[in-house]
Amino acid sequence: MRLRLDLSYDGARFHGWAAQPGLRTVQGEVETALATVLRLETAAPLTCAGRTDAGVHARGQVAHVDLDDEVDTGSLGRRLRSLLPDDIGLGAVTVAPAGFDARFSALERRYVYRLNDRGPGDPLARGHVVAWPRELDVNAMNETSEPLLGEHDFAAFCKKREGATTIRTLLALRSERRGDLLETTVRADAFCHSMVRSLMGALVAVGEHRFDPAWAQSVLETAEREARVRVMPAHGLVLEEVVYPPDDALADRAAQSRRRRDH
Amino acid sequence: MRLRLDLSYDGARFHGWAAQPGLRTVQGEVETALATVLRLETAAPLTCAGRTDAGVHARGQVAHVDLDDEVDTGSLGRRLRSLLPDDIGLGAVTVAPAGFDARFSALERRYVYRLNDRGPGDPLARGHVVAWPRELDVNAMNETSEPLLGEHDFAAFCKKREGATTIRTLLALRSERRGDLLETTVRADAFCHSMVRSLMGALVAVGEHRFDPAWAQSVLETAEREARVRVMPAHGLVLEEVVYPPDDALADRAAQSRRRRDH
Repeated sequence: MRLRLDLSYDGARFHGWAAQPGLRTVQGEVETALATVLRLETAAPLTCAGRTDAGVHARGQVAHVDLDDEVDTGSLGRRLRSLLPDDIGLGAVTVAPAGFDARFSALERRYVYRLNDRGPGDPLARGHVVAWPRELDVNAMNETSEPLLGEHDFAAFCKKREGATTIRTLLALRSERRGDLLETTVRADAFCHSMVRSLMGALVAVGEHRFDPAWAQSVLETAEREARVRVMPAHGLVLEEVVYPPDDALADRAAQSRRRRDH
Repeated sequence: MRLRLDLSYDGARFHGWAAQPGLRTVQGEVETALATVLRLETAAPLTCAGRTDAGVHARGQVAHVDLDDEVDTGSLGRRLRSLLPDDIGLGAVTVAPAGFDARFSALERRYVYRLNDRGPGDPLARGHVVAWPRELDVNAMNETSEPLLGEHDFAAFCKKREGATTIRTLLALRSERRGDLLETTVRADAFCHSMVRSLMGALVAVGEHRFDPAWAQSVLETAEREARVRVMPAHGLVLEEVVYPPDDALADRAAQSRRRRDH
């Protein structure tokens, strides 16, 4: 049986999502708790929708795991919650509908990047809001976003992985003031490595008037990693939501994603 | 000259506001930074509006300090901000108006206590939201609050201090749901020691249906510390705001507060 797990975490003390020997990772912690509760000899591997980097947070991460035996999801959830550390929150544990794949069935991922560029900031939020010493021009940032929307090769904003495509469809890249915060919402069908934080680096550079809004488009068109695009700090970034299609479209969506990406 | 300092802090790693030898406190950190910047041989003592306990946070703390020499507040603020640790935020540094006393001029203090009694909670907010394992009855909590409003002897909800009055005027005690959170706003002219967290203990006991709403009033009327009133955890509490009267009423208000309270 395949289970869906809804997860949130404070990324500060994790070396990212993906399990790595000897390092504390979200995947590692959840797999260990699952193996303990289910008395598995070898951990059942989790697959997630968004493999967040070290320091990146999540409120809406989704993962799946395949188990050999039937389990009671309510009881499993309660036992997992009592074992997991306090920087991981476990939401619903449900039996996944047919065709569901946490990674490949997803239609889109929504991230929010938060900056405080006005004044001292809230010490209670400093773990997930980046303090920025200069006020940013939000209109210039949104002007920069416009030509980046849609399907492009985002190689200029990605750390290349051999054999993996960097073509993505950017659905939203919108910056707004909310009280003292400057929040940028980023939505795409999927993201390549460091893409959100690199896009943020370009927006911030324009927001500081170090480049004009057209610069980001010219960087995009080179399709080559650009050293002047700074990768913004991890702790400002939260994976807020993963969107899936209706149940009867899950399998088709997964097949389509697999064809498009060579992972 | 007297300066007003607006401060915020994450209380987690402090032994409260008040300076104590050998312990990390907010007052100690700010006084040390001030002495460094101004090259004072002995620290100039800070007076604050709300002496928060260990673990309690603040977004709207106000303090004053008296200095022998004139200073440039803009430059002082910048230099203090560069020295202060990242769990203290320094807002405005201003020359206090005549008659201003951070403690005695205040008309009221506003605190908010935050609980999550529904589900796993947001790991990014766990430093200032208390996870509560059972859902609370907000209506019963508000019914409990009603008879506590106004001027009373709150001895039943205070840790006694020799020679200090426990008569206070409670201006608001209102619980509301905000998304997953249960927020209780507490306003009073001033608070005695552990009063907010004890009031919260009473509200939570009623919210869990362990006592009926009239119980808190009967406790109040005893004017004796009541063991069944639990002092709720510190980390759910934030001093959000201190309210002062218009400048021309500051001195009168300070004189009036001093008369009402011993020490």
